[in-house]
Amino acid sequence: MGAPLEFYFDFSSPYGYLASQKIEALAARHGRDVDWRPMLLGVAFRQTGTAPLTEIPLKGDYSRRDFARSARFHGLPEFRMPSRFPIPTQAAARIVLWQKARDVALATRLVKAYFRAYFVDDVDISAPDQAVAVAAKEGVSAAEARAAIDDPGIKEALKRDVDGAIARGVFGSPFVFVDGEPFWGLDRFDQIDRWLATGGF
Amino acid sequence: MGAPLEFYFDFSSPYGYLASQKIEALAARHGRDVDWRPMLLGVAFRQTGTAPLTEIPLKGDYSRRDFARSARFHGLPEFRMPSRFPIPTQAAARIVLWQKARDVALATRLVKAYFRAYFVDDVDISAPDQAVAVAAKEGVSAAEARAAIDDPGIKEALKRDVDGAIARGVFGSPFVFVDGEPFWGLDRFDQIDRWLATGGF
Repeated sequence: MGAPLEFYFDFSSPYGYLASQKIEALAARHGRDVDWRPMLLGVAFRQTGTAPLTEIPLKGDYSRRDFARSARFHGLPEFRMPSRFPIPTQAAARIVLWQKARDVALATRLVKAYFRAYFVDDVDISAPDQAVAVAAKEGVSAAEARAAIDDPGIKEALKRDVDGAIARGVFGSPFVFVDGEPFWGLDRFDQIDRWLATGGF
Repeated sequence: MGAPLEFYFDFSSPYGYLASQKIEALAARHGRDVDWRPMLLGVAFRQTGTAPLTEIPLKGDYSRRDFARSARFHGLPEFRMPSRFPIPTQAAARIVLWQKARDVALATRLVKAYFRAYFVDDVDISAPDQAVAVAAKEGVSAAEARAAIDDPGIKEALKRDVDGAIARGVFGSPFVFVDGEPFWGLDRFDQIDRWLATGGF
């Protein structure tokens, strides 16, 4: 089996959510696993001098339309734009990172639960209480999840991951590395599919 | 036959070039024509506060890689990044616009000739002499093409088109309207295909 697809995402990214629903089937078709890597887009935006899509003139209106249309196109009509957008996602990212070091399968379930909470059920997962509650529903200890959010070691680990992502050139979400080759966006999944099938082109 | 697909592009846009090689077959599959609409991205960038992709930290390196990879993916390996990039494209846009009012078929050939000159043969079409020479090779009178570049009426018509594009929400290249529905990027051609097949989704 080849190396896992490294799937970088921010929980506040609509295209990240849509891609999160597609990446496992894509990887599995080629006998690959997915390595789920939460990051913080705000840090990347400071590097690129950009802003969240919805805050950019012209692009903002188009993006809102395209989020919903792309969701329908990809068979994910349950997508809905959250009431509050964008949000800081440190709390969820830290809980996932903490859990990943203990139980990767559970951490993967957490990733999906957070995306679903935010983009389907309109839960504001930036609030530590909500981030803990989502984890608790997946069977994680609420007290431990709460502690993970404020754990200096976890904070530092997330910061290191984000800095590492940016050092590798990650500037958006989703962002996937396939055997070192970078692909930005759900709309590169067709290229990833061929890359995996052919070994590169 | 339905309305033509309105294909907005800037001659300095790599994805615009790639899309220009694909849009006619896509339109023809659904019995549509293409309305080629040159615009000036610089004006849109001032609205959105963005810069040419290649000048943005992180995004720049990725984009150069993605231009070439996307060209190979779409079966257009003759694509090459021009020596000078980006360039102002008023000269070519004005000649196309002038010709479009006289002979639409010839104007369409000119669009393809300019894209090919810039992205395959590395001709700097921002230079009026080069823009005129490309037109002349397609059978256009060099003297008339030269005059069109400096014609106040043509200048004004291009300005009006660009302002009109921005008023419709065009902020990138390629940008396609299908019966009023906006699609940004070659990577939305799969959605355009389904939109045309189904009447919208």
